[in-house]
Amino acid sequence: MIPFEKLKNTIPKNLLERGLTVLTSESKPIKLLFEQRRVPDRGWKDPQIARLLDLFSSMDSDKDSEAACVGERMGRVASPLVSKLASGFNHGVGSSGDLAGIQPKAAGGSLLYYFANKLATDALKQFGVSRVKKALVLPTATGMSLALALSVARDTTCATEVVYPRIDHNSPLKAIRLVGLKEKIVEGKIFGDSVRVPEGDVEQAVSDNTCAILSTTTFFSPREPDNIKEIAKIAQEKNVPHIINNAYGVQSREIMKLVNSAMAAGRVDAIIQSCDKNFLTPLGGTIVASPNEGLLDKISGAYAGRASAAPVAQFLAAILSLGIDGYEKLRSEQEANRRLLEESLARLAEKYSERILQVYNPVSVAMTLSGGNAKKIGKTLFASRVMGARALDKTDFGVCCPEYFTAYINLDAAIGVKPEDVVLATERLDKVIRKVR
Amino acid sequence: MIPFEKLKNTIPKNLLERGLTVLTSESKPIKLLFEQRRVPDRGWKDPQIARLLDLFSSMDSDKDSEAACVGERMGRVASPLVSKLASGFNHGVGSSGDLAGIQPKAAGGSLLYYFANKLATDALKQFGVSRVKKALVLPTATGMSLALALSVARDTTCATEVVYPRIDHNSPLKAIRLVGLKEKIVEGKIFGDSVRVPEGDVEQAVSDNTCAILSTTTFFSPREPDNIKEIAKIAQEKNVPHIINNAYGVQSREIMKLVNSAMAAGRVDAIIQSCDKNFLTPLGGTIVASPNEGLLDKISGAYAGRASAAPVAQFLAAILSLGIDGYEKLRSEQEANRRLLEESLARLAEKYSERILQVYNPVSVAMTLSGGNAKKIGKTLFASRVMGARALDKTDFGVCCPEYFTAYINLDAAIGVKPEDVVLATERLDKVIRKVR
Amino acid sequence: MIPFEKLKNTIPKNLLERGLTVLTSESKPIKLLFEQRRVPDRGWKDPQIARLLDLFSSMDSDKDSEAACVGERMGRVASPLVSKLASGFNHGVGSSGDLAGIQPKAAGGSLLYYFANKLATDALKQFGVSRVKKALVLPTATGMSLALALSVARDTTCATEVVYPRIDHNSPLKAIRLVGLKEKIVEGKIFGDSVRVPEGDVEQAVSDNTCAILSTTTFFSPREPDNIKEIAKIAQEKNVPHIINNAYGVQSREIMKLVNSAMAAGRVDAIIQSCDKNFLTPLGGTIVASPNEGLLDKISGAYAGRASAAPVAQFLAAILSLGIDGYEKLRSEQEANRRLLEESLARLAEKYSERILQVYNPVSVAMTLSGGNAKKIGKTLFASRVMGARALDKTDFGVCCPEYFTAYINLDAAIGVKPEDVVLATERLDKVIRKVR
Amino acid sequence: MIPFEKLKNTIPKNLLERGLTVLTSESKPIKLLFEQRRVPDRGWKDPQIARLLDLFSSMDSDKDSEAACVGERMGRVASPLVSKLASGFNHGVGSSGDLAGIQPKAAGGSLLYYFANKLATDALKQFGVSRVKKALVLPTATGMSLALALSVARDTTCATEVVYPRIDHNSPLKAIRLVGLKEKIVEGKIFGDSVRVPEGDVEQAVSDNTCAILSTTTFFSPREPDNIKEIAKIAQEKNVPHIINNAYGVQSREIMKLVNSAMAAGRVDAIIQSCDKNFLTPLGGTIVASPNEGLLDKISGAYAGRASAAPVAQFLAAILSLGIDGYEKLRSEQEANRRLLEESLARLAEKYSERILQVYNPVSVAMTLSGGNAKKIGKTLFASRVMGARALDKTDFGVCCPEYFTAYINLDAAIGVKPEDVVLATERLDKVIRKVR
Repeated sequence: MIPFEKLKNTIPKNLLERGLTVLTSESKPIKLLFEQRRVPDRGWKDPQIARLLDLFSSMDSDKDSEAACVGERMGRVASPLVSKLASGFNHGVGSSGDLAGIQPKAAGGSLLYYFANKLATDALKQFGVSRVKKALVLPTATGMSLALALSVARDTTCATEVVYPRIDHNSPLKAIRLVGLKEKIVEGKIFGDSVRVPEGDVEQAVSDNTCAILSTTTFFSPREPDNIKEIAKIAQEKNVPHIINNAYGVQSREIMKLVNSAMAAGRVDAIIQSCDKNFLTPLGGTIVASPNEGLLDKISGAYAGRASAAPVAQFLAAILSLGIDGYEKLRSEQEANRRLLEESLARLAEKYSERILQVYNPVSVAMTLSGGNAKKIGKTLFASRVMGARALDKTDFGVCCPEYFTAYINLDAAIGVKPEDVVLATERLDKVIRKVR
Repeated sequence: MIPFEKLKNTIPKNLLERGLTVLTSESKPIKLLFEQRRVPDRGWKDPQIARLLDLFSSMDSDKDSEAACVGERMGRVASPLVSKLASGFNHGVGSSGDLAGIQPKAAGGSLLYYFANKLATDALKQFGVSRVKKALVLPTATGMSLALALSVARDTTCATEVVYPRIDHNSPLKAIRLVGLKEKIVEGKIFGDSVRVPEGDVEQAVSDNTCAILSTTTFFSPREPDNIKEIAKIAQEKNVPHIINNAYGVQSREIMKLVNSAMAAGRVDAIIQSCDKNFLTPLGGTIVASPNEGLLDKISGAYAGRASAAPVAQFLAAILSLGIDGYEKLRSEQEANRRLLEESLARLAEKYSERILQVYNPVSVAMTLSGGNAKKIGKTLFASRVMGARALDKTDFGVCCPEYFTAYINLDAAIGVKPEDVVLATERLDKVIRKVR
Repeated sequence: MIPFEKLKNTIPKNLLERGLTVLTSESKPIKLLFEQRRVPDRGWKDPQIARLLDLFSSMDSDKDSEAACVGERMGRVASPLVSKLASGFNHGVGSSGDLAGIQPKAAGGSLLYYFANKLATDALKQFGVSRVKKALVLPTATGMSLALALSVARDTTCATEVVYPRIDHNSPLKAIRLVGLKEKIVEGKIFGDSVRVPEGDVEQAVSDNTCAILSTTTFFSPREPDNIKEIAKIAQEKNVPHIINNAYGVQSREIMKLVNSAMAAGRVDAIIQSCDKNFLTPLGGTIVASPNEGLLDKISGAYAGRASAAPVAQFLAAILSLGIDGYEKLRSEQEANRRLLEESLARLAEKYSERILQVYNPVSVAMTLSGGNAKKIGKTLFASRVMGARALDKTDFGVCCPEYFTAYINLDAAIGVKPEDVVLATERLDKVIRKVR
Repeated sequence: MIPFEKLKNTIPKNLLERGLTVLTSESKPIKLLFEQRRVPDRGWKDPQIARLLDLFSSMDSDKDSEAACVGERMGRVASPLVSKLASGFNHGVGSSGDLAGIQPKAAGGSLLYYFANKLATDALKQFGVSRVKKALVLPTATGMSLALALSVARDTTCATEVVYPRIDHNSPLKAIRLVGLKEKIVEGKIFGDSVRVPEGDVEQAVSDNTCAILSTTTFFSPREPDNIKEIAKIAQEKNVPHIINNAYGVQSREIMKLVNSAMAAGRVDAIIQSCDKNFLTPLGGTIVASPNEGLLDKISGAYAGRASAAPVAQFLAAILSLGIDGYEKLRSEQEANRRLLEESLARLAEKYSERILQVYNPVSVAMTLSGGNAKKIGKTLFASRVMGARALDKTDFGVCCPEYFTAYINLDAAIGVKPEDVVLATERLDKVIRKVR
């Protein structure tokens, strides 16, 4: 678009050429992106990402100063700031007919969405789930994405019950109910320190009125990931849809292996993951993936209307910023921080005659609070600016079983956490326990 | 927070005081907002709005450099740009328990949402619907908001059918189906040039299995607004929920009067309006209003999860930028542009032996295309960069009745349109008709 | 640079083409700029300007991620914000050898400067001084630019005295002294209400030791513009350099005509004008113009070192934002506001038995304060937030003559002033006079 | 200014308090700055700096929407972008009477300048020159600042000759000539590999017509720093002003010790250092320091006019971003990179039978190019994107003496350079020599 040849006879030829050489170097990543449509190996710099977003949003029809706009929805904005708050994607993404469909007024928004989806697909593959065929970034919460997937299962099966290995989290339950379904909760049981939902119980819960099995890979210790490989086999045998809530599983190489092997072993209809919990975006987007492209189209087709482009732009920006190398580095750090967290808590546990719960959980660590006062410890910890820890009594919502055998506290070493956070949190927990008891 | 008193003995006292006077003047609007919690009379300048958003987002826990964060979702971002794309509201809005609820990690996001909702409520009241008790900004498309409202009606009535005076738009139909309901379409009929759905037909359609009536105030000419006052009476008599899709009705003083009088005359459970079509925001948000606060809580409670703050921030920015005066000015311009559009099209109609359809529609104007070639005219017009016009044949999806008596084209003079758009669009339509015929 | 052809098979072809059409439309101004290198007729939108600046600054060598930088001055910055504060032009403009010369490390900064100078030249021609051959934007105050020009005159003439028709302003005097010269002030005299410096007196002041005549076109009423046409003739006759301080003269069509006719009639070496007073830029830049390219090169060559690019970027942005049409509109408004100011003050004068001073001055208006208390009126007016008015007693620095016959106050209706400012200032002056007397 | 108490009864009290706690934490650095007026130990984050600049620029009178502006220079701008290019400091800094003086229309700009100067003073002290009384940031090139200082020396001494130990750099020579003075160059001589100007020669050059001695601390190897301690003694004895061009000396702990001991031992009137070469700002500012406050006031008083605030804002931003710790870390890295550079070049030298020149120079390293082809090596190296290296033949401008005994190339390991730059530059130099010979 920029007629660089017209710059002849401005500054000396060799200097101009040097300048254009720099430009060419710096725009090479965009060239590679357009050609390969994959997550770049090395992350982009912020100004490069900003330029890509500006380029795309400049292609939307509301930027066309030669257009005559006589519709009721034309991407008009109250002020330049308002447009900036949307990175210029004033038309959002999708059409009322299909969220993932193209939007005739928004070539740029459509390109944004195209690349976000391409990179989401590639990211899931590169980060461990090679069996994914396609993935979509939905600009909506994980729970709402679950609802969309469940509505498709509902229409396919004409059944009304969702078999739900118990996870004590509100969003999935609300998703089930929003689309007019009912949960059939399969209780968690205690095995050693771990809380698991036995596959046999899941199998037994499946009936003629089962619309879907909704399994989960990530939750707080002592809850372990569901045995999704076995559940996938059950789903296949019983011929019921299987949706995996992989909320923050992408960050974990182990969890992603589980997902891939579940897909190999049995039936998986959709895998749903949070953008912000996995890809360091602001809250608001989900990636829905599937081995079945048609199913994915139905899921996005179930969204009623067009949507904000913000979560899509944020995901694209985040994945370009990270790159494959950056993400793998973060994953390795997550693993190291998970070890650090366990070690730090173990020392603390020894000091207070508590112990670490022996549980398989790649992100979360729990320590007993058998000395009591869990609630107060939790509150005081929050007041001392430790964010994200959860102190629970035996029968609290959160234990995922009728009654756990001890009060406990769990902390997460999730992707993006810093070793300083872990150290500081443990130190403050130390002070809090000393003070409260 | 800023210790201005510490600036003593920097620059001369009287100059410092002058500077602080300017600061005080410029921060007066923020003071008024905090006190009154209403739409300001005069619109704010962009930098003032930016400062408010920055202030709020700086209160979220991810900005706390003294915090130790050990959760799985802590507002971490891949790069400064990614945070900027969310105006710093990395925690989004809402909690998994309640979208409109407060978020313990996000004092700033919670304040943002508090003020957006307060101003949404005030805006609807000031712009004509005084009977609104409360309104919420939902960070989701109009269709999805309809779905949330319908799911509440479904749970209340245990019925499965939505009586739907026919509007040929995909989103409401998808909303109905998403939550497991079925539409019972009441056909449009032709009265003179107008397409209307007779109230009697609506009444007849209501049955024991009616979960809700979903009426509509705004659509393209020759479809007229539903007679929502009579429908509200029917809803009250029959004791069925009544949801008004007021998609782009806020811009019209007349439509807002209709809504208010419907609320006075009968039953209205929820009124749903698009942020972008009414308030010049980027696409992605809806305002759901109700005379019933409890019902509104249920609707927001039906959203599964937390959500992107972007549509909320965009609405707050837009309404602050507009102010009461700015909005009323835009409405007056809309009325003038509506007249200009009708006059311009009338001249064109005369030239080509067509005529303006005589219809009550405060936003949209339609002209016959009895000379044929509607499809081609539509396509050629789009190619000549007229956006938003719709050329339809007699039985196309869009006519809202089994068969209209002529092909026609409609154009909208919606809020924010410029007279130049109207003039240019008419000129180009002239050329297109000449060329195509 | 952007390989749009690689976007094939992303979104549908016709939509992609539409998007590229929008891009092409929106980048047309940049194409015209590169081709014509003139002030555009219609002003650019801010995002277009921002893109041009980003494009240029991306060509500087500090952006080259493939470069190895081993110099002492490589455009390194402490943080991204610091670079943003310079719009990315971290290398500034110029080389230590020549401010207007190209900078080998900064192709982009060199292009920025090239276009700023081209547009400065074109602007002066289009706005009335067709005889200008070349103009340069110097990133330094008007006074410093005067100093540079005077230093060249000094080296040419080997004389030490600057003939200076009295203007009571500090900067020109400091400029003269900075380069080791001395002013020979030619006193102002009163003619009717006007303060003028008679050409005859100027002529008499010229001697063998005259290094230059420094005339002025714009000052506060009752000082009138110097008769630069006659002074130019004297300069030619006496063979002495003539520098015109045209500080805020570009805004006035009349003043620009004077400048042009002076150039036609006699000798003018350099014309110096403030960027901020004429082109609505932030303070910090000057445009130096000349009918003599070689002289201009000497002036820029006298600047010791490289310089901040900020004033250059600000001028380029401002002139692109204004365009020819925008500037002419502002000039017409200035003329209207000048009339409004005189009328408003005249009404006030009548009320307080004062009168408007009858003076030729296209920007400034003065009213007598024969009722006394000028100092207090000035202070009280400033305290009531009227900025820019000057109340002077008969012998104050500012009257430009040994003693004026009355105290007075002057106000300016300069380019960019709003009618509201004029009205408000007059109202407040009314209150102040009432109160003080 | 922000009435946080008015937020009562918005969100729950404890959440609001948490938000305000975060705000308080994050604004603590600003509180410390206002109190202590010193360079912070730890660097600020970019958003904190941006907020400070926004706060200050919001105090300037052009932001006062209640003001009536009727002057010729009111900080008006062509568009919001133009203001943004100046970070809102549209009034610049200084007054026409005194650059370092306060500006009545710009409380914010005056505060900006106050803090920039305070931190510049503190920085020089903290970084090694404790004898500095005061420093000013001048928004102009190093050369122009030299000119200002020389003009004061000229007016004090009424002499016309500047004794100038030879440095082959244009800017100082231009500075001397701009203010009407003449340089008396004292030649460099070769001692071993080093080029030095013997103090005895400097002493001899001083005469009754000496206006100042202009010594230099930093130049490219094999030129060594001037013996400023001895020169300071000479200046004291002979009673002539002594100005030190400390262009990029702040980065070096050793050079700063030299400066301090020179001040202790004899006469130093002014020390002048580049902002960009020392503090990682964009090009355009200088810090002028002195043990004599009155002298400094004269220097800033010699600047004719007000000036762009950009270099001042950039310096303040950079020093806040760096902090004491950050700067000392950069200095330590500079020392390590200097060693790395010497080692890398030594290996290369051995390979090509060249050698490192044995010279005292804390930033620059030079290697012989006795094998010839210096010019071509220089050009090819530049073409291979090595920036900042200088290849010189024996009598080139740059050798600082009549004839050096060999051709050579020098490279700098200046502050901010990365080890990768050093490694890459050496590798490419290797290839270039191989290719060229």
